[in-house]
Amino acid sequence: MREPDAFRLSRRQLLASSALASLGVVGALEVGSPSPAGAAVGTGGNGVVDFYGTHQAGIVTAAQDHLVFATFDVASRSRSALSTTLDAWSQAAARMASGEQIPGDASPAYPPADTGEALDAGPGRLSVTFGVGPTLFSRPAVSGTAAPVSLADLPAFDGDQLDPTRSGGDVCIQACADDAQVAFHAVHNLARLGQGVLALRALQVGFGRTSSTTTAQETKRNLLGFKDGTDNLLAGDTAEIAQFVWVDDEREPHWMVGGTYLVARRIRARLELWAATPLGGQEAAVGRFKRSGAPLGGRHEHDPVDLSATGAHGLPLIPDGAHIRVASPLANAGQRLLRRGYGFADGVDPVSGELDAGLFFICFQKDPALQFTAIQRRLATNDALHGYLVHTSSGVYACPRGLSPGEGWGQVVLG
Amino acid sequence: MREPDAFRLSRRQLLASSALASLGVVGALEVGSPSPAGAAVGTGGNGVVDFYGTHQAGIVTAAQDHLVFATFDVASRSRSALSTTLDAWSQAAARMASGEQIPGDASPAYPPADTGEALDAGPGRLSVTFGVGPTLFSRPAVSGTAAPVSLADLPAFDGDQLDPTRSGGDVCIQACADDAQVAFHAVHNLARLGQGVLALRALQVGFGRTSSTTTAQETKRNLLGFKDGTDNLLAGDTAEIAQFVWVDDEREPHWMVGGTYLVARRIRARLELWAATPLGGQEAAVGRFKRSGAPLGGRHEHDPVDLSATGAHGLPLIPDGAHIRVASPLANAGQRLLRRGYGFADGVDPVSGELDAGLFFICFQKDPALQFTAIQRRLATNDALHGYLVHTSSGVYACPRGLSPGEGWGQVVLG
Repeated sequence: MREPDAFRLSRRQLLASSALASLGVVGALEVGSPSPAGAAVGTGGNGVVDFYGTHQAGIVTAAQDHLVFATFDVASRSRSALSTTLDAWSQAAARMASGEQIPGDASPAYPPADTGEALDAGPGRLSVTFGVGPTLFSRPAVSGTAAPVSLADLPAFDGDQLDPTRSGGDVCIQACADDAQVAFHAVHNLARLGQGVLALRALQVGFGRTSSTTTAQETKRNLLGFKDGTDNLLAGDTAEIAQFVWVDDEREPHWMVGGTYLVARRIRARLELWAATPLGGQEAAVGRFKRSGAPLGGRHEHDPVDLSATGAHGLPLIPDGAHIRVASPLANAGQRLLRRGYGFADGVDPVSGELDAGLFFICFQKDPALQFTAIQRRLATNDALHGYLVHTSSGVYACPRGLSPGEGWGQVVLG
Repeated sequence: MREPDAFRLSRRQLLASSALASLGVVGALEVGSPSPAGAAVGTGGNGVVDFYGTHQAGIVTAAQDHLVFATFDVASRSRSALSTTLDAWSQAAARMASGEQIPGDASPAYPPADTGEALDAGPGRLSVTFGVGPTLFSRPAVSGTAAPVSLADLPAFDGDQLDPTRSGGDVCIQACADDAQVAFHAVHNLARLGQGVLALRALQVGFGRTSSTTTAQETKRNLLGFKDGTDNLLAGDTAEIAQFVWVDDEREPHWMVGGTYLVARRIRARLELWAATPLGGQEAAVGRFKRSGAPLGGRHEHDPVDLSATGAHGLPLIPDGAHIRVASPLANAGQRLLRRGYGFADGVDPVSGELDAGLFFICFQKDPALQFTAIQRRLATNDALHGYLVHTSSGVYACPRGLSPGEGWGQVVLG
């Protein structure tokens, strides 16, 4: 006996989402009710993040609670195969963001079109963000396509211990959702759609979002126990987002105008060493109080950071090497980043016996050389936190502008 | 300037929890409102799971959404050091389950007593479950203490590809919570308290709970896309829980009466092979319809499984090798398990290039030899799913009875 309604839930879910939207519920969630820490209200009703738009979702979208970040390498020499696959990816991403399944024949004689593990989970505020790495443009399948102007491998930084298999990649997918399984499902299905054309290179699960991206979200703590991202750029900072995030350079390929650059760094934290550091030392390294997140010398998290304030003996309250001083726009020609970081815990380091855990750092910017690279150069040299951190992966990717319905990433990037 | 209220939130959080309890809110959540998929209602108000009781928490407790499972080896020859550390662990676990911090000096001159990453997260329905492995009893620090009667290494099963570093361990900690960071925080702080005495051996993050443990929880899907645990033992099946889960054998050490045995298996799923299998083949391998979870021949998930039903040509509707037939109590002398499984995704297998993802399987039982081992022997030989699964870790642990306030795991197990 076959099930009469096999694989039809997707439409019901879509209708449910639409119904929520018509009630104004989805919009409210999307703008970012104070980070719902995975707050499903009822079954699977986490809301829908629009896939289509001027910019890609997952950048200024209120940061979801879970991340699956994956990279892929082109495994085909065929331009049309790659283009078709990337178009299929964007269509699939749009469907999954709506809580729909990958469509296909539901006959028992064929493999299911969708792997199915998110079938009852709802849209989960899924966003799927796509980027292309520098190596893509040396692939035969991409021959003749101009690379984005600011897309170049990051330089080596002092202290880097990069795992090449975790780094780089011809393309990346950042899947964020309030349900970890929804984020995994998205990457799983894109990997499957890419078989033979885009080979999975690396995959990283992240939990416990740190940086907020809207004022409605409270600041969360990273695995060092500190509030992280207090001074992040926020979706509502329209002028700053235009200034620091969205590409508007006419020398860029047309598909990068409205796009941005994503930098990803897997940053292992030496948690045992950190935990053995006195509270005062931790706070001096960060430049903030651990409990409140207030800048040293302040009382409340969002008190302005006064880098010139001095205390006893005329010493600066925020020490010279404090992270927030070295990373400050004031120390970096005014440059800022839009951050979207997640914690990770991948087990035990076989050599040291220490936790292999830390922060999977993602940031978005208009120009990686002027923004991430310039800031990270200073951090790698001067930041008191640097001795507690080991960067174990690195990647930079150009994220195209957002798509309109009917457009696909293959068509837009490969023409 | 010091913060006047540094590290005092813990008490406020405790008061908040008590306030919720007095409103009857905590109880309602704990019995298991339909799995809240991490449903924080407001900030950090996920409820408290009682740490103290006849049995340990985290066994029949309504399955939380996230898992961190860790194993440790004894690194000291001192019985008193081990006993003191285990007592400190249970006290810390009780505090963290209440949403409190590890207590200690909040002076800037000392390392913080708590690592702090869950400071604002609330209790998150955290449960911390403790078990001891067979190897513990050959450690000098444990000399003279009798091992539980049914605690013995699991035999090798056909197809096992066990990673020894992920397997075994002198003790285990299962931390479950509706907030992944709360679960990580618990293991992180226990690891820190154990330094020099209990060395971290392995750590596994799991997301996307599969098996429900209460009737109020809907069945979730595993990464194969199937509802998992439809026929699980449930907290409300009091007679079956007494029959299959809680140890009541008078030959056992007194601390095992009211305890249980935990088996953990990291089961990698060959997701690429599975995704290439026709829907009918997947359903035949499981014995259930993918969409509804109904047994083949049935219409609804909870329809009774009729192993004798036949279809065309007199063939069984549930094939000979179907997972639910081979794992059925009818095929296993009536034996059953209490399951608590989670999905995992640890990246890409460096050899095959395939996803290193699957199910971190945990089950509880009165007697591993009669229950998990007997059933797994049949599954490893006859289960049609077996060809899609690779067991990459294995562990068996005796979980003591629950503690009363004032008791500790060291005192109870080591005397």
